[in-house]
Amino acid sequence: MATTDVAMNREAFKTLVKNTLERRLFYIPSYKIYGGVAGFYDYGPWGCQVETNVLNLWRQHFVMEEDMWEIRCPCVTPEVVLKASGHVDKFTDLMVKDLKLGSCFRADHLLKDFLTKALEDDARLVAERAAAPQAVVPDRKSKKNVAEPLTPEQKLRMQSDLAGLDEFSGPELGEKIKAYSIKAPESGNDLSDPYPFNLMFSTQIGPTGTLHGYMRPETAQGIFVNFRDLYYESGNKLPFAAAQIGSAYRNEIAPRQGPMRVREFTMAEIEHFVNPDDKSHPKFKSVENLVVYLFPRAEQMALRDHVEMRIGDAVAQGIVDNETLGYFIARTYLFLTKLGIDKKRLRFRQHLANEMAHYAQDCWDAEIECSYGWFECVGCADRSAYDLKAHTAKSGQELTAYESFAEPKDVVQLTIVPNKKVLGKEFRRDQKILSESLEAMNREEALALKAKLEEKEKATYKVCSTGQEFTLTKEMVAIEEKVVKTHGRNFTPSVIEPSFGIGRIMYCLYEHCFYLRPAVPGEQVSSVFRFPPIVAPIKCTVFPLMQREVLNVKSKAMSNGLTRAGVSNKLDITGRSIGKRYARTDEVGIPFAITVDFDEGVTVRERDSKQQVRIPDAEVVDVVRDLSNGTVVWEDVAAKYKLVTVAEIEAEL
Amino acid sequence: MATTDVAMNREAFKTLVKNTLERRLFYIPSYKIYGGVAGFYDYGPWGCQVETNVLNLWRQHFVMEEDMWEIRCPCVTPEVVLKASGHVDKFTDLMVKDLKLGSCFRADHLLKDFLTKALEDDARLVAERAAAPQAVVPDRKSKKNVAEPLTPEQKLRMQSDLAGLDEFSGPELGEKIKAYSIKAPESGNDLSDPYPFNLMFSTQIGPTGTLHGYMRPETAQGIFVNFRDLYYESGNKLPFAAAQIGSAYRNEIAPRQGPMRVREFTMAEIEHFVNPDDKSHPKFKSVENLVVYLFPRAEQMALRDHVEMRIGDAVAQGIVDNETLGYFIARTYLFLTKLGIDKKRLRFRQHLANEMAHYAQDCWDAEIECSYGWFECVGCADRSAYDLKAHTAKSGQELTAYESFAEPKDVVQLTIVPNKKVLGKEFRRDQKILSESLEAMNREEALALKAKLEEKEKATYKVCSTGQEFTLTKEMVAIEEKVVKTHGRNFTPSVIEPSFGIGRIMYCLYEHCFYLRPAVPGEQVSSVFRFPPIVAPIKCTVFPLMQREVLNVKSKAMSNGLTRAGVSNKLDITGRSIGKRYARTDEVGIPFAITVDFDEGVTVRERDSKQQVRIPDAEVVDVVRDLSNGTVVWEDVAAKYKLVTVAEIEAEL
Repeated sequence: MATTDVAMNREAFKTLVKNTLERRLFYIPSYKIYGGVAGFYDYGPWGCQVETNVLNLWRQHFVMEEDMWEIRCPCVTPEVVLKASGHVDKFTDLMVKDLKLGSCFRADHLLKDFLTKALEDDARLVAERAAAPQAVVPDRKSKKNVAEPLTPEQKLRMQSDLAGLDEFSGPELGEKIKAYSIKAPESGNDLSDPYPFNLMFSTQIGPTGTLHGYMRPETAQGIFVNFRDLYYESGNKLPFAAAQIGSAYRNEIAPRQGPMRVREFTMAEIEHFVNPDDKSHPKFKSVENLVVYLFPRAEQMALRDHVEMRIGDAVAQGIVDNETLGYFIARTYLFLTKLGIDKKRLRFRQHLANEMAHYAQDCWDAEIECSYGWFECVGCADRSAYDLKAHTAKSGQELTAYESFAEPKDVVQLTIVPNKKVLGKEFRRDQKILSESLEAMNREEALALKAKLEEKEKATYKVCSTGQEFTLTKEMVAIEEKVVKTHGRNFTPSVIEPSFGIGRIMYCLYEHCFYLRPAVPGEQVSSVFRFPPIVAPIKCTVFPLMQREVLNVKSKAMSNGLTRAGVSNKLDITGRSIGKRYARTDEVGIPFAITVDFDEGVTVRERDSKQQVRIPDAEVVDVVRDLSNGTVVWEDVAAKYKLVTVAEIEAEL
Repeated sequence: MATTDVAMNREAFKTLVKNTLERRLFYIPSYKIYGGVAGFYDYGPWGCQVETNVLNLWRQHFVMEEDMWEIRCPCVTPEVVLKASGHVDKFTDLMVKDLKLGSCFRADHLLKDFLTKALEDDARLVAERAAAPQAVVPDRKSKKNVAEPLTPEQKLRMQSDLAGLDEFSGPELGEKIKAYSIKAPESGNDLSDPYPFNLMFSTQIGPTGTLHGYMRPETAQGIFVNFRDLYYESGNKLPFAAAQIGSAYRNEIAPRQGPMRVREFTMAEIEHFVNPDDKSHPKFKSVENLVVYLFPRAEQMALRDHVEMRIGDAVAQGIVDNETLGYFIARTYLFLTKLGIDKKRLRFRQHLANEMAHYAQDCWDAEIECSYGWFECVGCADRSAYDLKAHTAKSGQELTAYESFAEPKDVVQLTIVPNKKVLGKEFRRDQKILSESLEAMNREEALALKAKLEEKEKATYKVCSTGQEFTLTKEMVAIEEKVVKTHGRNFTPSVIEPSFGIGRIMYCLYEHCFYLRPAVPGEQVSSVFRFPPIVAPIKCTVFPLMQREVLNVKSKAMSNGLTRAGVSNKLDITGRSIGKRYARTDEVGIPFAITVDFDEGVTVRERDSKQQVRIPDAEVVDVVRDLSNGTVVWEDVAAKYKLVTVAEIEAEL
């Protein structure tokens, strides 16, 4: 019951926040006058300002402070680029169709919904019977209509299917759907077998119909294809990082998690290129003492909770693969908490082996807890050299860096050359993944395999990411190691990729900043967003105390002064009561309000404390600017200027 | 010959700027490693920063200073919205196809290229014959191979076709192409008849294949569909304005004007909603004395040049339709010149009657002169109530404002009701445009038509925008005027729309800011962008005088201090010579450079004057910040601090 209560409170809270956000136009369902389209939201004035502020802070925190190159590429992308990146073949979800109506559903969602409901129904039934066992028989009319509790075997199977949901292949999902007799929601019609639906919005470039394109599913590819120029502009030196902020697209089958899962969204991505042999970070020392919630693979497998840990320890113990990845986890933590994300509801979850792409070295998602549960908002991945190699292979253009040695070196060169022809003949479609996996072997693995092949002619080889096993013969892969004298080397850099879903972060920020102010006499219960000034949609409201021309004129002058100083502000001369006007600015999270009356000076009120101080006319713009920038905090201002007493405040309202 | 020289210089200049912009990664042709795709450019680091700065300034200048609502809507747009706006039916260019190869061309471009070349060839031929008349006969081998000058009739027809290019219908263009025997470029194959090609990128939303969508061709529609909410958030008061910055798409048939005509671009649009009976602007007085280049319709028709005019006079004389439109022309001028656009190469050209949409009241394009000629970069249009009415009609949702009268009023209500059924029967496809035109009649026109119809049973009616004439009968349109007592009225607001093509403005800015610095002894000719600090990609470079650890440390500390103060900067510790490093920062338009040496204080150099001053360590961050914000100008700094002499500079290099 406790779980249900929490869930219900969660739903009630979600609704409360949603209503506030939509009433005050943080979000507007897109194309509302035409009935809307699922998965699309407009940002109204306040939401738009918050996004601008979040992006400005991101630019300052990452691009400027880490000295990155920011670039901007188009969203329309020709097919060849996304063929190389793997999106054309693999960026899919499994879909089933209502065989009569043609409506579409995500296969895994249907199975999940069915299993969750069946287990919940069963739990309720068991609880009811335990509470009133005698009630069961009299209600019975015919055996058919009465639900029976699940057998232990049924229950176990359902629980195990629910846990294994993400790993089912298409055919497996199809079998489960058949086995449980799952039908189309609402219509109850039969469903098709699951089949992959590509999630990219597709289009044609130009009029000929021969150049196929897609709206980009991420901004990263634009950086990879420009690697060479950016490397050159960086003085041909590693490491360097490039960043991109922009729209990305995902044509969801049936989006249903509000602003957390949309079809068009803003991403901010960083590609940090490093020498794969040296993933240390020069500024790692500056963050090593930071303590964050980590949720390593081992904890997840053991069904334990996330743990608190120093970043320095996590890297030293090999829990986080390398310093650069650790550094970006720390910087991500600092960015999110600066925004106003609650650090108690922020953790970094490591990908399980089966979640990661087969080429990835290590991957941590920043998950933020909100009413939709723990939700991935940032991914920090070490993608090794996969992307640059993929584009090199497809375009024929070398995307490598050069390292010259101080003195010529005797270098042991390991070469792994899968014989794709032979592999293809033997393993067909698996050739590609097998070859990639072989090429990615480290020295130790490669030499062990070579030894085995030479000794026994055959060897069993396992592709870790998929668990498939292959029996290899000597002719299938050539592994060689020889010593050569070299003056330097060309190599494909590894890339560490922190990738931010800005819209998800914003939605979690709204939830974390939202609170209800208890009713006090003379006021209604009202809601407040406690945004830090730096992300608050605007910084300040200006009110005349009452509707008088002289006050309007002074208010307008004050507003203009703030604007000139770069402090975003809004003049409210609607003539609503002061209390109502405060409630309206609190509701959108504006941190400061200036009330203009007939005396010298003005009253400045802070949103959360509701404290008010008198500040001389000549000083107020500077004070509010410094408060907005965060160079001064309210406590200092409250200490410096005369506080207005409660009696004075009440007299005013 | 002079014209040719200018044209050649223009091309040489264009190439010079293009090379600099591409070498320093302001632009990178998108997907370059895959051979690129016409009409797409990436903004590399410097271009991306310039765009961010331009957009920030736009936000400050318009959204903040004019107190607008900024919103952000998706680019993916369902068909119904763009059906209502007219884009599905009318956002087309006329295209012809190579009948054998299938390659596509803009019909008007082919005709234009043919006529331009034919007239140029003729002019050259005439000139050659004039210079050496005796040379004609000996060169002749057979009559066929010798070009003959055009007859006066031929020449006149070509000139008139060239001038009338924009007005040809599809069939007319087809006839011209046949008449001149124009073939496909390069292949020489026959061409298809011209047919309209819709310029929107089209796509499917969701997996069902039943929800058709497009990438938006402008950001404006997102504002129109949200009119009701924004009006409410404005306290149900007019005027108010909403703005949107974002990507827009135009699937050009064959883009060929570099960064000036691309398929994906950033727009910044304003929709200012006003009462159609009162288009005065409260802040008009603040701009009325501004003098700008205007190119009114009358000047264009008389083949005269643009004129210099006070905005106040232009509105008073009715040249610009109303104060609000005049106000935005002035604010646009101020914005563009603040960016660094040369005011001598900026004019506002009024649309000719046949260029304007039939519903538009008045329209002025900000044209900027660059090596592509005078190019439309901003449109300022009074679109009357067209867009809101179109969405009301399509969605069935009222998009109106309400005006309550101080006292009940006797109001003469004019109603114009076209009988669409009868009109449709009689005029078929022309019904729509005819009905719209009838509904848009002012009182005078309507009453005149009514009188004529009552007197003579029939009347000729001309649709101004197309020039078509129709013979109307009484039953085709009901025109009524009666007196009613009313307390207020609902009405559809008019909208004034300033619409900015950010990419075009940026390209013109690059050309206007570019100059070559003459070689002085010891230096090479180098190029410089004289960006105002506010739009310069970054504000400052920091150099150590030479490669010494102690200087690197101090330089890094200085760079960090600048970053903390929000001054974007780049540290250059490449060890290139100081002269080369200056040349590299000049080349991307960074206005200030700090050189760190072994003494207390640093040298700060200004880009264009090449002046250098010594500034104490403790003051330099504040000075450079103020210079970057524009709160201080270089002349003040040069006056306050010790100038470094030429001898000292030369000793350093």
